[in-house]
Amino acid sequence: MAARGRTVSQLVRRFADGASGRAPDRLIVEEPLEIRLDGHTVTTTMRTPGHDYELAVGFCLTDGLLAGAPVQQVRYCATGSAVETRFNVVTVETGGRAPVPEARLTTTTSSCGWCGTDQVDAVADRLTPLAERVAIAPEVLMAVPDRVAPRQDLFDATGGVHAAAAFDAGGEVLLVREDIGRHNAVDKVVGRLLLDDRLPASQLGLFVSGRTSFEIVQKAWAAGFGTIVAVSAPSSLAVEAARRAGIALAGFARPGRLNLYTEPDGGPAPS
Amino acid sequence: MAARGRTVSQLVRRFADGASGRAPDRLIVEEPLEIRLDGHTVTTTMRTPGHDYELAVGFCLTDGLLAGAPVQQVRYCATGSAVETRFNVVTVETGGRAPVPEARLTTTTSSCGWCGTDQVDAVADRLTPLAERVAIAPEVLMAVPDRVAPRQDLFDATGGVHAAAAFDAGGEVLLVREDIGRHNAVDKVVGRLLLDDRLPASQLGLFVSGRTSFEIVQKAWAAGFGTIVAVSAPSSLAVEAARRAGIALAGFARPGRLNLYTEPDGGPAPS
Repeated sequence: MAARGRTVSQLVRRFADGASGRAPDRLIVEEPLEIRLDGHTVTTTMRTPGHDYELAVGFCLTDGLLAGAPVQQVRYCATGSAVETRFNVVTVETGGRAPVPEARLTTTTSSCGWCGTDQVDAVADRLTPLAERVAIAPEVLMAVPDRVAPRQDLFDATGGVHAAAAFDAGGEVLLVREDIGRHNAVDKVVGRLLLDDRLPASQLGLFVSGRTSFEIVQKAWAAGFGTIVAVSAPSSLAVEAARRAGIALAGFARPGRLNLYTEPDGGPAPS
Repeated sequence: MAARGRTVSQLVRRFADGASGRAPDRLIVEEPLEIRLDGHTVTTTMRTPGHDYELAVGFCLTDGLLAGAPVQQVRYCATGSAVETRFNVVTVETGGRAPVPEARLTTTTSSCGWCGTDQVDAVADRLTPLAERVAIAPEVLMAVPDRVAPRQDLFDATGGVHAAAAFDAGGEVLLVREDIGRHNAVDKVVGRLLLDDRLPASQLGLFVSGRTSFEIVQKAWAAGFGTIVAVSAPSSLAVEAARRAGIALAGFARPGRLNLYTEPDGGPAPS
């Protein structure tokens, strides 16, 4: 089931087994989305359309822009006629309760840069410690990819899209979001949980279909997830951030196999 | 052969075949790099250390910041003592011949956003048409991933890193760069070619180990590559941009198999 507007079909020339011919192929759609907070542009991200409100709200939260302010309204920028409205701008409104966002790229600086640990420090300063987390058994984590897979509709159709999901300690998958950008898929999950008033997500685990970078851990940390499980490898800085946050970070998850990179509970009980 | 400083070893708890135990695991290093152009900060990217000069120069070129200005010098920002120097800031110097970079994120805008086609238009306006390209046979493209694989040292060590490579019409791989970020790997390849005075790369193909997004095509376009071949799928907008640029875009490349999404030469000759 490919959602309309998120995939497109086109003819490609397919080479296989020594022959070639034209055949229809389904591509994942990539389009820019501009996100505004109380009228200020905060980012433009290349994303797969769909769940745009969740993406906008999730981004504002995980990027630390809300600073605790409640979201009052989310809407498309649609001042023109219906024909003109492109649905590529979403505004998150807090009625001015969120701080005015700063432009990120200052064009002159004088310092000699920072290192990864400084970045982890900056995130730690900004975020509150995790609420009491629920430990999730390694056996549950190993099974998550196979539980998410049947719900990766866009991946089935195109082979070119990432997934993120939230799951509970019993392994039940609560929601799955897909996007051409890994960060966007996570923001869509976080945004849905925020709109449903389910944050912080300390009782839940976050699944990502690819690798775990620092930024993924930062987003999980901001949303309060106690566990991250990924199909692929984490980076050095992702592990450092997860350790600091008290998040259990697992990678290379598949049936019967798992690597556990951080163990905030002091390690699993013998199974 | 894992380069020092690009991977780190740590103990992980590994679960396999019903047992678990501590074992060493090698992680890819992720650290921020701030890139400056003539003293102005233009971006901070999370990257794997190594080939930082190439990354900085490549980014400035593919992001359109050089605007034809020649690179006079590339250096680490290292004003402090050796102990203090963190090698996480690189300055590209054109002696002021490059335009002063604009801050990207304006904090207020009034328009209702743009769509992907507008973005392709903007890139087309900015870039000169490709120099005469060399067509590369599908059989050559299918073989590229297997030719690059033996040189993906960091992937072998960590399983968590992307590769980009430049190759010629005979399939010879000229250089391979790896990075935790896909865009960074491409920028490192482009930067090396620029520093070697080998741009535009119209005689060469660009290999990417993952998917092809709009931004990857934009970078290839800026460097003048005539062909892109990827291991995975392109996005809708990547195909649109490649078509406009006159770049042959191939995906899902493996021995004997390939999808060709754009055919600027009007399709391959019968083999």
